[in-house]
Amino acid sequence: MKRYTEMSADELKDQKAALAAEYEKMKASGLNLDMSRGKPDAGQLKISRGLLDAVDSKTLTVTENGIECANYAPLDGIPEAKRLMAGLLMVEEDEVFVGGNSSLNLMHDVMAFCLLFCLPGCEKPWIKQGEVKFICPAPGYDRHFAVTEHLGFTMLPVPMKSDGPDLDAAEELMRDPSVKGMWCVPKYSNPQGITCSDGVIKRFAAMKPAARDFRFFFDNAYAVHDLYGDERDELIPILAEFKKQGSGQYAFIFSSTSKITFPGGGIAAIGAAKENMDFIKKHMSMQTIGYDKINQLRHVRYFKDMNGIKQHMKKHAAAMRPKFDTVINTFQSELSGCGIASWNKPSGGYFISFDAMPGTARRAVDLCKGAGLTITPAGATHPYGSDPDDKTIRIAPSFPGVAELEKAAKLLCVSVKLAAVEKLLENK
Amino acid sequence: MKRYTEMSADELKDQKAALAAEYEKMKASGLNLDMSRGKPDAGQLKISRGLLDAVDSKTLTVTENGIECANYAPLDGIPEAKRLMAGLLMVEEDEVFVGGNSSLNLMHDVMAFCLLFCLPGCEKPWIKQGEVKFICPAPGYDRHFAVTEHLGFTMLPVPMKSDGPDLDAAEELMRDPSVKGMWCVPKYSNPQGITCSDGVIKRFAAMKPAARDFRFFFDNAYAVHDLYGDERDELIPILAEFKKQGSGQYAFIFSSTSKITFPGGGIAAIGAAKENMDFIKKHMSMQTIGYDKINQLRHVRYFKDMNGIKQHMKKHAAAMRPKFDTVINTFQSELSGCGIASWNKPSGGYFISFDAMPGTARRAVDLCKGAGLTITPAGATHPYGSDPDDKTIRIAPSFPGVAELEKAAKLLCVSVKLAAVEKLLENK
Repeated sequence: MKRYTEMSADELKDQKAALAAEYEKMKASGLNLDMSRGKPDAGQLKISRGLLDAVDSKTLTVTENGIECANYAPLDGIPEAKRLMAGLLMVEEDEVFVGGNSSLNLMHDVMAFCLLFCLPGCEKPWIKQGEVKFICPAPGYDRHFAVTEHLGFTMLPVPMKSDGPDLDAAEELMRDPSVKGMWCVPKYSNPQGITCSDGVIKRFAAMKPAARDFRFFFDNAYAVHDLYGDERDELIPILAEFKKQGSGQYAFIFSSTSKITFPGGGIAAIGAAKENMDFIKKHMSMQTIGYDKINQLRHVRYFKDMNGIKQHMKKHAAAMRPKFDTVINTFQSELSGCGIASWNKPSGGYFISFDAMPGTARRAVDLCKGAGLTITPAGATHPYGSDPDDKTIRIAPSFPGVAELEKAAKLLCVSVKLAAVEKLLENK
Repeated sequence: MKRYTEMSADELKDQKAALAAEYEKMKASGLNLDMSRGKPDAGQLKISRGLLDAVDSKTLTVTENGIECANYAPLDGIPEAKRLMAGLLMVEEDEVFVGGNSSLNLMHDVMAFCLLFCLPGCEKPWIKQGEVKFICPAPGYDRHFAVTEHLGFTMLPVPMKSDGPDLDAAEELMRDPSVKGMWCVPKYSNPQGITCSDGVIKRFAAMKPAARDFRFFFDNAYAVHDLYGDERDELIPILAEFKKQGSGQYAFIFSSTSKITFPGGGIAAIGAAKENMDFIKKHMSMQTIGYDKINQLRHVRYFKDMNGIKQHMKKHAAAMRPKFDTVINTFQSELSGCGIASWNKPSGGYFISFDAMPGTARRAVDLCKGAGLTITPAGATHPYGSDPDDKTIRIAPSFPGVAELEKAAKLLCVSVKLAAVEKLLENK
C-alpha cells in the first residue's frame, strides 16, 4: 500500500471517501465500547478471589511478632507485610512503610509532606520557597500530573526515550534550585510500557540536583506485570543503586497490589532510605495511628512471599496477553504501510501507547467517540492535558473482552486514518 | 475522714508517712500496668470476629447498584456503606463520604484541604492568610491537638462545661477572623465523657464566626458507645440542626467503626452538607481513586443497619461496664472525703477524667510510673501538652483486665494522695 504522505490530492480524496464510508458503517452498527480505563476485568478479579478467604473468624489475626492486627498500631505496617512489599519495592524490610489500598494516596501524602514540612537537613518546606517545579516525563500518567498541578507545582515535561526518561533534559532542568522533584514510572511505564535500563537507573542515582531538598518519585506500579514470560524487562533495585552512589536521600519508591489483587481492596507501600523513612513516619504519625492491618495480613497469608506473587501474576499475564495481542495485531494489519502511525509493543504493564500522525490525535479520539468508542482523552498523557504534537493516544486493553477490543481497535485505526487524510488534504 | 486541706502540718506528716509506706509496698510488688491506651481489649475484639466472615470468595462482591467492590471507584464509598455511616453521623445518605480505616486521617485530610485550598465561596486558603487559629475545648483529645499544631495553627483553649464546651468563651474568640475553626467531641467526649446538650448543639448552629471560612470539626467517635443501657446520653443530629439554622456550611462531622469493630480494620466517614461535600470530593479525587470498598461491604453485610450496630454495641457495653465500675468504685472508696480529687462517671465513651489537686497531676503520674503503672502523661489532655492547673489525668480503663484495673486504680489513688500531701506540706 502507498504511504498516505506520498499520495496525491486525488488519491487522498478517494481514500477519504472510502474511510468515511467505512467509518459510517461502523458508527451505524451502534457500538458502545470503552478502552479508556486501566482497570482489571471481571476475569482478572476472579484470579484473586482466594484473598477473601485468607483471614476468617477461625484464624488468629496475630503477626509473627505477636501484634494483634485487629487493634491499633504499628504505624508502618506489620512485619510480614513489610517483608512482602520490600520484594515489590526492591528495598530492605526496614525501608518499607505499608499503607492503605492506594499508592496514589501515599504519593499524594508524601508530596504534601514535602510541601508543608522541612525535609531532613533542610531549612524550609517547599511551600515557603516561592514557585516550585516538578519534572514530568511525558507521555506519562495523568494522575501524577493531576496531583502535581493540584498541589501547586509548575510542571516541566521531558521526553521519554526507549530506555527511560530523557535524563540530559532532566539534568539541565534540575540545575534550577526551584526544581524540587521528578516523576518516573521505572518499569512498564504508563502509557508506553518502557522500562528504565540499568544505565538510566545508575544515571538517576548519580544526578546532582541543585536543590538539596529534591526528590525522585518512582512509581513502580507494574513491578511484576510481565506479559510474555521470559520476554520480560528487568529493573535493577533503584534504592540500592541510589544508596551505592551516596544519594539514597533523593529517592522515594511506591508500589501497590492494586493490579495484583484488587484495586478496591489491595495494599500499598512506600520504600525509602532511613532519613526519608523517619520523615515519612513522623508526619504519618500525625494523620493516622495506622492503616488496615487485617488486609495486610490477608495479603501475606494469601501470597506468602514474592514467589507467590510471581506465580499469581502468571495468571494475570495469561488473561492479558490475548488482549494486548489483539490490539497489536489489529494495528499491524490495518495500519502497516500507511506511514502515519506507530505504536509500542510492551512486554508488560497495562497500556499500549499509540502515536497518530502529529496534529491528529484529538480529531481521531473525537471520531472514535462519535462512533461509540471511549478512549482516554488525547493530551491526558501530558502535563496540563496538552500534548504539543497532538499525537499520543493511550490504549487501555485490560477491561473490554477480546471481541470488543478487536472492534474497538479497528474503529481506532479507521479514525486515525481518516483524521490523517483530512489533515493531509488541508495542506495540499 | 478529715479533709487533707483541713489537716495540720503534723497530721499531714503522719499521713505522708503512711502513704509513702503504702506506695513503697505497692512499688515493691513489681507491678507492670498500663491505663494509658484508649483501645479495646482482646475480649472486645472477639465480639467482632464475625466481621471477618462477612465477605468470602463464595459471595458476590457487588453492591446493591451493581458496582464491583473489588475494582476501582466510586470515590465516596458504596451506597450501602454510605447509608450505614449516615446513621452513625446522623446525616443524610448523600451527605456521607466513606473513607479507609481511620477517621483521624479523614480529619487530618479535611483540615489540610482547608489549609491548602479555597473553601466554597472563599477567596484564599487558610495557609495564605497569615496566622490561623483553632479553638480547642480542653480537656480534649491529644491527637486533635497534635494535628492542629502540626498543620501550623495556634491553639486557643476553651473550658469544658457539664453540657459541652464553653460557648461564651468560644463566641468571644471567633470574633477574630483569623480563628478558623473549632474542635468538638459532641458525645462522650475524650476524656470527660461529656455529651453536648440539645441547647449547646443549637447554640453551635446559631453561632456567627467572623471568618466566613470558619469550620467546626465534630468528632463523633463515640456515637453509639453507651455503657449503661437506658442511662445513656442522647445527642441531637448536628448537621440537621446547622442546616435548620442556615449554617450547614460550618459543620464537618466525623466518625468511624474503630471502636465498634476493629481499630486496625474498620471504616471511617465524613458527614457534610452539599457544598462542603463537593469540596471534599474534589480534593479527595486528586489523592485517591477510592478507598477499600471490600471492607465497606464487609461492614454492611455484618451489621445490615444501625439497629445491627446498636445490638452489637450492647456486647461492648457489657465488656466495658465492669471496668468502668471497678475504677469508679475504687476512687469512691479510696478518695471520698479527702477533698483533693474529683472524677466524672460517664454514661459512655472510652475514658474517665480525673481531677487531682491543682498542681499535683504531673507528680502523681510520675509516682504511678515509678511504681510500674503507665498513665497518659499529665497535660496531654490540653493544647501544647500544658494543663494550666496541672490537675487533669485521663484514665483509659478499656485495655487492662478488671483485677489489673483495681490494682492500677488503687496505686493511682495512693499516688494522688501522696502528691497532694507533699504539696500541702510545702505550703505550710
